Amino acid sequence: MTQDKKVRHQARMQKLKQSVDEKVAQAQEEKGVLLVLTGNGKGKTSSGFGTLMRAVGHGQTAAVAQFIKGEWASPERHILEPLGVEFSVMATGFTWDTQDKESDIAAAKEVWQKAKHFLQDPNIKLVLLDELTYMLSYKYLPLEEVLSALQSRPPHQHVIVTGRNAHRALLELADTVSEVQSQKHAFEQGIKAQQGFDW
Amino acid sequence: MTQDKKVRHQARMQKLKQSVDEKVAQAQEEKGVLLVLTGNGKGKTSSGFGTLMRAVGHGQTAAVAQFIKGEWASPERHILEPLGVEFSVMATGFTWDTQDKESDIAAAKEVWQKAKHFLQDPNIKLVLLDELTYMLSYKYLPLEEVLSALQSRPPHQHVIVTGRNAHRALLELADTVSEVQSQKHAFEQGIKAQQGFDW
Repeated sequence: MTQDKKVRHQARMQKLKQSVDEKVAQAQEEKGVLLVLTGNGKGKTSSGFGTLMRAVGHGQTAAVAQFIKGEWASPERHILEPLGVEFSVMATGFTWDTQDKESDIAAAKEVWQKAKHFLQDPNIKLVLLDELTYMLSYKYLPLEEVLSALQSRPPHQHVIVTGRNAHRALLELADTVSEVQSQKHAFEQGIKAQQGFDW
Repeated sequence: MTQDKKVRHQARMQKLKQSVDEKVAQAQEEKGVLLVLTGNGKGKTSSGFGTLMRAVGHGQTAAVAQFIKGEWASPERHILEPLGVEFSVMATGFTWDTQDKESDIAAAKEVWQKAKHFLQDPNIKLVLLDELTYMLSYKYLPLEEVLSALQSRPPHQHVIVTGRNAHRALLELADTVSEVQSQKHAFEQGIKAQQGFDW
């Protein structure tokens, strides 16, 4: 690289740094963030757990309420529970496996009771509500009660909600919304869901 | 719920189960998946680490090569390294912080050497190449070499690549592509990036 190019790169990066620094200086509020990870692509639950692991790695307290999932082994729980993360798991499996709406609703309500406790506990810095969106679209849980619990949580508590088709009211309440869109999926090419990678 | 409704729910779920089971039966190939997590939304790196934690929770061997990031403490490393996950970290910080292209390229190449070893090791079930996309868009690493290393990896090894603006050739090679789109971001509303949640 010539001296000239080097100087130009440095100048560009200085300008970029100034712009980044200005934006960082403008964002000074610290508060609990409601993050919704929605869309039909792979990676929503993984992302929730990745963020949770980061919080735990910083020594923060975190809790997980998992809706739908949980009939099978939970490798995330296997790692995170010994690190102090509390889990509440619906443990019914998918609706097409149980085929019993009443017992599904009862199981959802039980996990929601526990989730409400998490959302009232100021010692919990991060709550993951995995696959909560389905409980609202199936009307297994009352929307107003869920929104109200989220709104009245401790001000510094972060919450991550995952699942497809997040309700419009949830998106409105959220501070950050990421929509994970599937551009391509191995499953459609005949590749099966594999242990460790997909579940 | 009336008995009638109950029966109808059950019938709908049986039909859905049949359709799900058929799709699952069609996807029978087991092979290493190349997953690209791209787009401008929050959650790509977290998703990569969440999947990695899942693999480790199943007792699988995993390794991480992190490009760009790494100047600051890594809570993910803090949790995963004691569980046997090998890390190679560029540790230069952002280009606008270093402002030195030559040293950035040298650091990228060093991490890439390590990443290539991961991509040749059949004992490693999952390799996370965090923020690799930038190394290609900045032309810090040769595209052909990266594609070739991905193509010639052990057949059962999964790879996750994260970062914005993934190169078209990388997207073509990928089995699964999720684009994480930002619909809304707390930072734009003056909320600062917070330890444990954002880094």
